[in-house]
Amino acid sequence: MNNKPELHTALSPALLHLYDISNSVVVIIDVFRATSTIASALYNGAKCVIPVDSVPKAIEISKSIDGIAAGERDGRVAEGLLHGNSPLEYSRDFIENKTLVLTTTNGTRLLHMSLEKGADTIISGSFPNISAVCDFLITENKNVLLGCAGWKDRFNLEDTLFAGAVISRIKNSFTIHCDSSLMAETMFEKYKDGLMKFAPNLTHYHRLVERFGLIDDIKFCLTNDVANVLPLYHEGKLVAK
Amino acid sequence: MNNKPELHTALSPALLHLYDISNSVVVIIDVFRATSTIASALYNGAKCVIPVDSVPKAIEISKSIDGIAAGERDGRVAEGLLHGNSPLEYSRDFIENKTLVLTTTNGTRLLHMSLEKGADTIISGSFPNISAVCDFLITENKNVLLGCAGWKDRFNLEDTLFAGAVISRIKNSFTIHCDSSLMAETMFEKYKDGLMKFAPNLTHYHRLVERFGLIDDIKFCLTNDVANVLPLYHEGKLVAK
Repeated sequence: MNNKPELHTALSPALLHLYDISNSVVVIIDVFRATSTIASALYNGAKCVIPVDSVPKAIEISKSIDGIAAGERDGRVAEGLLHGNSPLEYSRDFIENKTLVLTTTNGTRLLHMSLEKGADTIISGSFPNISAVCDFLITENKNVLLGCAGWKDRFNLEDTLFAGAVISRIKNSFTIHCDSSLMAETMFEKYKDGLMKFAPNLTHYHRLVERFGLIDDIKFCLTNDVANVLPLYHEGKLVAK
Repeated sequence: MNNKPELHTALSPALLHLYDISNSVVVIIDVFRATSTIASALYNGAKCVIPVDSVPKAIEISKSIDGIAAGERDGRVAEGLLHGNSPLEYSRDFIENKTLVLTTTNGTRLLHMSLEKGADTIISGSFPNISAVCDFLITENKNVLLGCAGWKDRFNLEDTLFAGAVISRIKNSFTIHCDSSLMAETMFEKYKDGLMKFAPNLTHYHRLVERFGLIDDIKFCLTNDVANVLPLYHEGKLVAK
């Protein structure tokens, strides 16, 4: 008999309701750039990252705990904040031993939705910490939901490609009967040797690079294991496990 | 300047709300098997197909107009009906000059959702009538939404592959900036020369073939232009345009 745990992929937060995640590890995926930035900050020694869904909340919480409030709206540092959503801002010199209070839209919303639906465990995933994510999922040996944060509920390919990358590494340890996962893995296999070359085809690339010149962010966000740490959610905070 | 109309792909009815379809032609896609069956019936001379969302409604309407009530639940002819949801049931001998009252779940629901959202024009699409669909979309020269009916709101690959097939044929006539469409076309291009060989990987294939032995249905549903007619929705009915 096949006793492997199940793995599914939700291509958008608007599809999360289709999955029972009460016994699952949910991987929050927001490749450009929230979950890459979370990996970067924790890898560089941040005490923790507190994900919040609004700028006022980021300011309020960061003041109360002497943290760094950060976030962007429409690709620029949000009004009232001094720091943005680039993984490259969070060098060790700057972030070590500090708490980052990060406001993002898509990733934070999916995380809170997963909490409300009673996820067993929540972690965040991105190419910069893909090995840590895969190792954790295999060790836990529980059901997995790969949750793509998308963009305002729309499907996006960079999150799907990361889901596919995870599947291609760990599929032998899971039961996978899910067209979303099959598609994600197929897309990843097709483009895995040239993610940067493929990137200009992504709708998100246009926003980040052509409008805001963030090509170095894109490179970081598409590079494996440059911030290889496991962000685990616990009582309102993502901490390095 | 680029004055081409826009084309988007909605991968599930649960994502339809993201698109403004008030000026769009919506293509309802339910490859296994509702929209293939609709094409088959109209191609073989049915007067029209009335899509309804329940068995009692199918019975009631068919009685009032002396039509053929048809539909399945869980892969078998539904209780109270004599005919199912196989495109092969609707030969010319049987269906010519008759009205088919067809109850399906996913396709009918998406059609009604599109109506409620004020779609400009609604047609149904499947591999058996792909050329008629593409010709119509190019002639109309309006915005297009390719609507995948999926399975109980879940993403499925056969509907996505059909969306990709349409995109690969008509993309030069449209503006397409949509990761869903890019993914659909990429998947189709990868598997276009062996759809039947790829089919066993689809979750739906298992239900239809391994449980119910409907391999001939699958073959029909994956064959181009074997029922090349354009089903156009008008006042509660799909009629051959």
